[in-house]
This record gives sequence, structure tokens and C-alpha cells, in this order.
Amino acid sequence: MSLTSRLASGRDEPESVAGNGLIHRRAFLRGGGAVAAAFTSYGVARMATAAPLAEDPSSLVVGGTPVPYEEHSRFEARVGRALSNPKGETRNFLARTPHQSSEGTITPNGLHFIVSWGGIPDIDPDRHRLVIHGLVKQPLVFTLDALMRYPRVSRMAFLECGGNSAPLFSPQPVQAGVQAIHGLASCAEWSGVLLSTLLDEAGVDPKAKWVIAEGADAAHLSRSVPLSKALDDAMIALYQNGERLMPANGYPMRLLLPGWEGNMNVKYLRRLKLTEQPAMTYWEAKVYAPVLPDSKAYRFYFVQEVKSFITHPSPGLAMSGKGLYEISGIAYSGNGRIERVMVSADGGKSWAQAALSEPVLPKAFTRFRLPWRWDGGPAVLTSQAWDEAGHAQPTRAEFVARRGELTKSLPAAAIPSQHNNSVCSWAVNSDGEVSHVYA
Amino acid sequence: MSLTSRLASGRDEPESVAGNGLIHRRAFLRGGGAVAAAFTSYGVARMATAAPLAEDPSSLVVGGTPVPYEEHSRFEARVGRALSNPKGETRNFLARTPHQSSEGTITPNGLHFIVSWGGIPDIDPDRHRLVIHGLVKQPLVFTLDALMRYPRVSRMAFLECGGNSAPLFSPQPVQAGVQAIHGLASCAEWSGVLLSTLLDEAGVDPKAKWVIAEGADAAHLSRSVPLSKALDDAMIALYQNGERLMPANGYPMRLLLPGWEGNMNVKYLRRLKLTEQPAMTYWEAKVYAPVLPDSKAYRFYFVQEVKSFITHPSPGLAMSGKGLYEISGIAYSGNGRIERVMVSADGGKSWAQAALSEPVLPKAFTRFRLPWRWDGGPAVLTSQAWDEAGHAQPTRAEFVARRGELTKSLPAAAIPSQHNNSVCSWAVNSDGEVSHVYA
Repeated sequence: MSLTSRLASGRDEPESVAGNGLIHRRAFLRGGGAVAAAFTSYGVARMATAAPLAEDPSSLVVGGTPVPYEEHSRFEARVGRALSNPKGETRNFLARTPHQSSEGTITPNGLHFIVSWGGIPDIDPDRHRLVIHGLVKQPLVFTLDALMRYPRVSRMAFLECGGNSAPLFSPQPVQAGVQAIHGLASCAEWSGVLLSTLLDEAGVDPKAKWVIAEGADAAHLSRSVPLSKALDDAMIALYQNGERLMPANGYPMRLLLPGWEGNMNVKYLRRLKLTEQPAMTYWEAKVYAPVLPDSKAYRFYFVQEVKSFITHPSPGLAMSGKGLYEISGIAYSGNGRIERVMVSADGGKSWAQAALSEPVLPKAFTRFRLPWRWDGGPAVLTSQAWDEAGHAQPTRAEFVARRGELTKSLPAAAIPSQHNNSVCSWAVNSDGEVSHVYA
Repeated sequence: MSLTSRLASGRDEPESVAGNGLIHRRAFLRGGGAVAAAFTSYGVARMATAAPLAEDPSSLVVGGTPVPYEEHSRFEARVGRALSNPKGETRNFLARTPHQSSEGTITPNGLHFIVSWGGIPDIDPDRHRLVIHGLVKQPLVFTLDALMRYPRVSRMAFLECGGNSAPLFSPQPVQAGVQAIHGLASCAEWSGVLLSTLLDEAGVDPKAKWVIAEGADAAHLSRSVPLSKALDDAMIALYQNGERLMPANGYPMRLLLPGWEGNMNVKYLRRLKLTEQPAMTYWEAKVYAPVLPDSKAYRFYFVQEVKSFITHPSPGLAMSGKGLYEISGIAYSGNGRIERVMVSADGGKSWAQAALSEPVLPKAFTRFRLPWRWDGGPAVLTSQAWDEAGHAQPTRAEFVARRGELTKSLPAAAIPSQHNNSVCSWAVNSDGEVSHVYA
């Protein structure tokens, strides 16, 4: 019995794996047998006429000439980062990745999120230097040419601002989409030199326990990094998705701490000083210290914990009639690989396991997907992720109990804004419009 | 005994794994013990002074404001594709990827190679249609919106023009670099709908054996694809590295046949017609039919076979004094994963196994690396790859014996130009200049 017939018959289908239309993730794989005429039955693909195909206008004229560095089609001009401060006023700048327009796991370099506290510096790579000093046997100064002679590594890694998803601290669901809520996270293939290689050459003094990283931008952004992380998977990143770093992502070099708070991945890296104690810089002492309901604050909060969110459908991507769709989104964890993602279409009453797009890499975006038959009625879509370290993405209730939420009575210094990885839900109404809700 | 001491002593080192300075690929991993002062001993990194660090000029002024779609630094303006026809004369257009400026495995979308026979069409995605007809039970027409409702997949895949590396057919080594010789190959993460999903819905007539794919560009580029490939891993690609396809890479949709000849991956895809026989289009009957020494020609040559080439060092990237370097390059095979890459620094007399950067994915670029101690004398660097299907990249002698080379006596129709995957060698002279040679 074809899926079409079963759908038409209205019977409870074996492919149905959870309430409100979730279909088994293997249903549409080759041999899954679910495809035959399934979409056509909803009028998604029209029948072709028997007449010869008309010429496309584009085939009647010779096209354009390639350029050395290609840009996207003029029909994609609307796809861009959302800017928090487009006029460049004297405050910080944020640019958020448009997850609703993306697919797969890689963020194109032009669309990688940024948070900037001092603007984007214009650095001549031939004049830039990286100094390693402090508690080392041999202080070192590296030019870019010198760094280019060292053994290099490449890896996929997500970056996420500690303040990403901060709108979820609101007691009422903020009416915004996936870009505004989750756009301060991106993923790229980074290439460069392992910091451990350079520290081996400098010779680490046994008294050293911390590395103070400083950038060459106007903010002099500095953060304290435990030596253990510096000797683990920390990288001096020189390339982003096969080309040199973008200017706003640290050109010509940045610190990459896979899985750790974005702000610690110091851009425009100019200095690494080994010390016995952390520096307690402005950025770690105030801005990126998560505040708890009892007004205590974390001194440090390094890891970006397990998170997932649905990108398709999401607010702004209206549904075009009932029938079959794919629910798709992004999951990641600073603790390693994503182990599984569960999806609900009924606000958490029932759940089905999503397919994960291979390869599932540690500390990198993982794309999850699940087919869904929308019956045209109200639905609430939610995702929840688990990582290989055994951590579960918290529900909103669990998260608020532990970390609090935004209330009017809080003094400014106690307003929570950091490391919110609670689940996120989208409601679909009977017009196919999608909005942010707390499920 | 440190590597520095051993290097200074001039003894035959245990890390030495092949002639002329090749060092074991694990030597520089954490714990490998080879790093300590190894580069400093060659003056690569200078000692820092004890004085306080001077301010960087970039830290004294507030920087620039982000834009919605970021471009690379003005200091990277030289990095671009090499254009074969920059004035847009009435002939084909080629744009070659600058491998000498890249790292890792991903080609940024702006730098993906292109071969165009009719220019780059300007296609309105809302007006574009994809038709599936011929030997199917139900002909179908898809809008882009309709395709967006189908289950999607993402995968890394290289694309390579059948004519890539054609300069290697010359009986004398062409004096050109890695971009001019190997620049018609790139790699990206592609996302879209498996063609098998759409063919399942259309219903394949048992008589069908081929799929004729046609593009909506001025060339009406058409190719015949065996149905078995269409039902295996063929994809209607909609996204390239997380954003919509670039205009010159088939916007708004292209056929992706992972591992197969670039020209078959029809761009601006408008029609798939299922037939009993191949169409023997102009492109497959003449342009992309490899000619053999006895003037016979392959009727079809689908797979891009196992290949590797060294990107660093390579012509144009001069060496800056003797000492330690990394030899690094790209390997790939249309038959699956790369199994191993061997590297020689003495023109093939001795070989060492390179490290492969994880994850090693099927039909995708794999980055290989090996440390090298250049003694300042002449060297010839070569790489050779094997794939998991058991195929070896042929030496030049093996390849010429089977496929011939360019000779003056050949009539135009018999000039070989396709599917050259023979090994490629770079010579380093005592001035550190790198040039193309046949080893």
C-alpha cells in the first residue's frame, strides 16, 4: 500500500513515529517506499504537458563572464547577516547568521556571525606579529611567514557567542526568528597551527597554568585560557573554509578554542602570555560571566553546551499548504559529537528521532532532518539534543529553574544573558504561519 | 636527544622516513617530541625582547563596521580565480581555483572553478522549472518552492573538469603552477534532493536505462547519465557550502554526480528525460571523449580517477631559507575514499606516507601533510595517491603508455586533453624557487 493511498485512507500509518504527523526518518530513503506520488498527491509537483518544452529566456542569450571572485546571484541579495548597529554608533557590533536561508553545516565566510567590541581593524599581515612570552623557556615572535612553515591542521568547528539565544531569557516568547534568536553561532573548516606545537617550541615553564590571549584590535580584547585547553585542541587559525580569515573573524590570525565560548577565541591575536593565575580581564570578570538567580555569578563558563534549534520551518518561512515537509535544523555541543536529536510536532507530548547528516563531527554543526506530514492544523515544533558526553539540552523549565530568567525587578548587573541552551519551539498556525512560542 | 640536536649533529635521524629530508608524519604531533626549538634553530621565530609590547597601529583606532555579506581583506585582493577569457570573447570561459592560496578541503564559493560554454545565465529562481519526463509513469514539473518541500541531503563532494591537468599531456613540463595545471577541481558541501527521491515519485518505466540532463543556459548543455548513477548518489543540488548555488555553478539548481566528470554535473538544470539509449550529445560525442594513442576514443568516461598534487610548496611559493617546512596537498578519487598518499622529496627514489586530515570522506578532497627538512639543495617533490577501490594514481610513464601525449604530428581531432591523473612533480632549486618538472 503506497503512502499516498495510506495518507488518503486516513489510517494510522506505520511510518508515523510520533504525534501530529512525524514520519520515520528512513521513510524517504531509497527503498523506503514512501515517496511514490506522495508529494504529487498534495499538488506539490504538477504534471508536465506532452507539448515540447518552451525555451527558457536564459538559453536565448549568451550569458555573463566570470570574475576572479564570484558573488551570489542578484536574486539572493536579501540573504545577509542581520546587523545590530548598522550605522556604526559607539557601542558594540553584532552580525547574525541567517540560519533560515542556509542548509548543511558550513557557514559561508561572508555570513559567519561576528561580535565586535572595537570595530573591525584593518591589519597588514606583513606587519602583524604574534608574541609568546611569560612563563616560557624561550620567548618567541612569529611573523605570518614564519607561522606558515609550521605543521598545520584542519578541522570543522562551530563558534558561538556566550550571548547567543539570549532572547530565550525573556519570560514571554520574543517574536523573532531563528536568525535573531540563534544567529550568533556559525560553523567553518579552520586551518592553522596547533597552539601546542608553538608552546612545545617555546618550552612551557612548569609553573604556568594559564595563557592570557590578547587581540590587536581597539578593544585590546583579552581572555584567560587554561593551559590544559591550550595544549589540547587550541589552534592558531589562519584559514576559514579554505581562504584566509575574514577581516571581522580575526584576519590575519585568531585563537580557536573548539567548543568554547566565542569571546575566548581571541581575534587579531597578537600575544599569548603564560601565567600562574588568570588575568580577570574586563571581558571575563563582567561581560561574559553568567549571573545566577541568587545573584552569584560564574567566574568562568568555558564550554558552549549542547544545543539544537529548528531552521526549517521557522518564523518567516511560511508553509504553502498541507502535506509533506521536512523538519530540519542544527545541533552542536562543545563537549563533542551530537549523539541524537529528538523532534516533536505536538509541543513535546510525543517525540521521534531525527536523522543526522554524516559525518557527525565533534564540536561542529550537525544537520538533523525528519519528514513531517502537516495536516493543516496547529502544530508546535520542538527539538532536543543529546551529546556523546551524556548531556541533554535542558527544557525551558529546567533551564529557568537553574539559571533564572529576565524579570523587571533585577538590577542591571544581575540580568542573565549568557549560555542559554534551552529548547526552542515554533508554533505553526492553520494559515501556515510560524511563530516563536514556549512549549 | 632533541630534534634540534640531532639535526645539528647531522646524524641519520630516526624521524627521517625517506630521502632528502622527509620526516615521519607523527613527529610534530603532541608528544612526538620533535618540535622543541626545531624551527627556532633555523631562525624561523625570533626571540622576543624583554621590553613591553608596542601598541599595534590597529589597536589605536576604532575599526570598521560590519556589512551584511563580508568580503575578504584588501590585503588578499590578489587571491582569485585565473580567467582564461577575461574579456568575454566568443569562446568558452574557464576560471581556475587558486590551490596555492588555499588550505584544508573546502573551496570557498567565490573561488570554485568553472567551465562555461555559453556564459553565466541570469536566472530568476521563481520562474525556473525542472521537468522530469520521458520513460516515467507520471511526468512532473517542479518549481524551486516545490523542491524545497522534499527531504534533503548534504554531502561533501569534489567536482573536476575532465580537462583538468591537461597541461600534463605536454611532452615537456609546462612552466606553470598548481592553479594553471590543476585549478579545474574544487570541493564543497552540497545540499539538495536526491534524484532517486524524485524518480521514485515520477515512477521509472522498466525500459528506461538513461537520463538525459539538459541545462537552461545558452549552450543547452546536455549529457547522458546512466540510470544506475541517477538512482545511486545523484543529487539535485540547491545549496553550496550553506548558501544557494553561485551563478556560475548552476544557480538555482544543478545536477550533482559525485565523483563523475564535471561536465556531466549539468548546471541550470531544466530537464531530465528518461530514455532507453544515450543521446550522444555534442558534449559527450566530441568534447569530453578521451582520445587514445591509436586514435580510438572512449565513448564515455564517467569517473574522475584517483589523483593527488602538492599545493605547498608549489611554483610561485618561494622557499625562505633551509630548514623545516610542511609539504601539503590535495588528493581525491571518484571511486570513494583516499586510502593513502605517498610523498617523495628525491624525485621518486624513496617515499614516505603522508598524514591524511580527518575526516577522510568519499569522493571529496582529502588534505595530506608531511613535515620536511629542506637542506637547501635541489629537491624534487612528488605525491602519489591510492583509493579504497584499489586504484593507484599512475606515474607519468604509465599514463603516457596508456593514454598518449601531445605530439605535433597529431591531427586536431586526436589531440588528447581529458582525464589526466598522472603524478605531478615540483623541483626546488638551491635558491628555493619551485618549478614544474617530470620526475
